[in-house]
Amino acid sequence: MHITALAGGTGAAKFLRGLTTAIPPEQVTVIGNTGDDTLIWGLHISPDLDTVTYALAGILDETKGWGVRGDSFRCLAAMAALGRDTWFNLGDRDLATHLLRTERLRAGESLSKVTEAIRRALGARCRILPATDSFVRTRVLTPQGWLGFQEFFVREKALLDVLDVIYDGADEARPAPGVVEAIAEARAVIVCPSNPITSIGPILAVPGIAEALTATRAKVVAISPIVGGAPVSGPAGKLMAAKGLPVSALGVAQLYSAWLDLLVLDTRDQALAPELLGLGVRPVVTDTIMTDRRREVALARAVVEALGS
Amino acid sequence: MHITALAGGTGAAKFLRGLTTAIPPEQVTVIGNTGDDTLIWGLHISPDLDTVTYALAGILDETKGWGVRGDSFRCLAAMAALGRDTWFNLGDRDLATHLLRTERLRAGESLSKVTEAIRRALGARCRILPATDSFVRTRVLTPQGWLGFQEFFVREKALLDVLDVIYDGADEARPAPGVVEAIAEARAVIVCPSNPITSIGPILAVPGIAEALTATRAKVVAISPIVGGAPVSGPAGKLMAAKGLPVSALGVAQLYSAWLDLLVLDTRDQALAPELLGLGVRPVVTDTIMTDRRREVALARAVVEALGS
Repeated sequence: MHITALAGGTGAAKFLRGLTTAIPPEQVTVIGNTGDDTLIWGLHISPDLDTVTYALAGILDETKGWGVRGDSFRCLAAMAALGRDTWFNLGDRDLATHLLRTERLRAGESLSKVTEAIRRALGARCRILPATDSFVRTRVLTPQGWLGFQEFFVREKALLDVLDVIYDGADEARPAPGVVEAIAEARAVIVCPSNPITSIGPILAVPGIAEALTATRAKVVAISPIVGGAPVSGPAGKLMAAKGLPVSALGVAQLYSAWLDLLVLDTRDQALAPELLGLGVRPVVTDTIMTDRRREVALARAVVEALGS
Repeated sequence: MHITALAGGTGAAKFLRGLTTAIPPEQVTVIGNTGDDTLIWGLHISPDLDTVTYALAGILDETKGWGVRGDSFRCLAAMAALGRDTWFNLGDRDLATHLLRTERLRAGESLSKVTEAIRRALGARCRILPATDSFVRTRVLTPQGWLGFQEFFVREKALLDVLDVIYDGADEARPAPGVVEAIAEARAVIVCPSNPITSIGPILAVPGIAEALTATRAKVVAISPIVGGAPVSGPAGKLMAAKGLPVSALGVAQLYSAWLDLLVLDTRDQALAPELLGLGVRPVVTDTIMTDRRREVALARAVVEALGS
C-alpha cells in the first residue's frame, strides 16, 4: 500500500500531517508544487516544499502556516536596516534551508536531490519530490502587469484583480525523477486540499503528470479546498474565477475531471453531490475543515476509507 | 587634512575607532584587506572589511572583535542541524551583510560599490575602500597543504605550522577605484597595527599600491602590531617567521622599509629604536596596547602628533 499525494502549502501540510498519522509516513510520497518558487535576496525559496517538509518534520509554525516554529527574524531586521526589501518574511532558522538549497543548486545539484537531503536532515519521514527540477513559475496577470506568485500573494496580499494565470516554463519542463512512477505505481493518488490553480495547477502543467494521472490504475481522489463557495484559506477563489471556473467543489471537479475518481467535499456542500456524478466524479461528503489535529486525522481516515470502498 | 589608513581587522578596528574620535571621520579613508575573503555557505564574506565597518558604525562586538554586538546564532544552529559546516561563525544580523554583498556581487556590482553601500547604510562615516575589486586570496601552506586564510585561522585555530604564504591572484589584480589616489593625495598614510603578512600583505601585493606608497609625498607611518616579540593578537608571529622576518617591530620595519617614514613602537620595545634608524625609519615610542577606548584615542593622538612633527 503506497499513497502518492499532490500538494501545495498550508492546506496540504495539515492534511499530510493527518495522513501520516493515519498511515505510516513511509507509505506516502508527496509531489510538491514549485510554481511558487522565487528568488529572495539571491536565495532560492521553495515555499510549498518547505511548508510540507517543516510540517512533516514537526517544526512548522502552525499559527502562521509557514516557517519554523519559534523562529526569530533578526536577519530580516538587519536586512531592513540595510535598505533591502523585506516583504517576504524569512526567519533566521528558515534561512538555513534556503542557504543550503541555494548553495547546492548553484553547485549544479537538482532540486529533487536537495529537497531529499533537507527532508532527511530535518527528519521528515515520507518522501517529498518536487513536481519538476525544471524552471516552472506561476505568473499572475494583474492590472499592474505580470507578477510572480509570491509578489501577488505576499507582497500585494492578493488584493489585486486577477486577469490571467500562466505557468512560465512549463511547456519545456519534465517531471522530476520518480514523479511519474510514484503516480503510476501508487495504490491511490490524493490531491490535497490545495489551491487548484496555483498549487496543483503548476504540477499538472508539467508535461507527463496529467497523463500519468489519466493512465494510472490507482484511484485518484481530491479534497476540495473550496467550502461554501469560498476557499478555506488563500486566494484560490479569485484565481479560479480568473480561469472561468465556478468557485465551488464543482469548479475543482471540472478542473480535475479528466482523471478524477472521487471528490471529497464538505458536508455543507452536499447539495453539489449530484452534479459531481454528472462529471463522472463520485462525491464523498464529510467534514473537511481541519481546525485541529484530531480533525486532520479524521479527514485523512475518511479519505483512506473512501479509497478502500 | 586627509588621512588614508591601510587596515586589517581587529587591531585596525580599534585603532580606527580611536582615529575617528581624534579627528573627524570624514577626513579618513580606509583601504581594507580582502585577502581573507572567503565563501561560506555560498556567501561572500569579507571579514576585515566587515570588522572595520562594524567598528566604525558602532555595532562591532568588541568582546569577540568580530561580528555584530548582541547578535544571535540561530541560523548557524539550524545549519548545523542540516549537517553543514559551521566552523565559521555567522550571526543572524551579520548574515544580512553577507547576503546583500553576495546578491550584489552576483548581479555584477563591484566589491567597492557594495562596501560603500553597506558602510553608508550602517552609518560608518569614513570612506572604506577594499584594496582591490579583483580576486586576491591569502593562501597558507601548512603540513596539511594549502589552506585559505580563514581555514587556517578559524577552522584550524592557527595551530598548524606555516611553511609559506602567497597572495593568489595578486599578480593580475588592480587597485580598486580611488585607492591609488587616496594614497597619492593624502596628507598622511597610516598603516594600522595589523598582521603585516595576512592583513597588510595582500594590500601591498596588489600591483600599484606599494608603488603609490613609495611615490606619495605624504608621510607614511605604521604602528607595530608586534610588541615584546609577539603579536598583540592573532597569528602574525608565525606568519612573519615563515616569511623569514624577525618577529619584532624590526621585522615590521624591514617589510615596510621601501616606503615607511615612521614606525610607532611600544615603550617596552624602545631598545629597537636605534636599529630602526639604520633602516631609514624614524621610531616613535609610545604605549600601543589599546585595552580600552581611552587608549585607542591616546594612540591615535600620538600618531597624528608624530605626523605633524
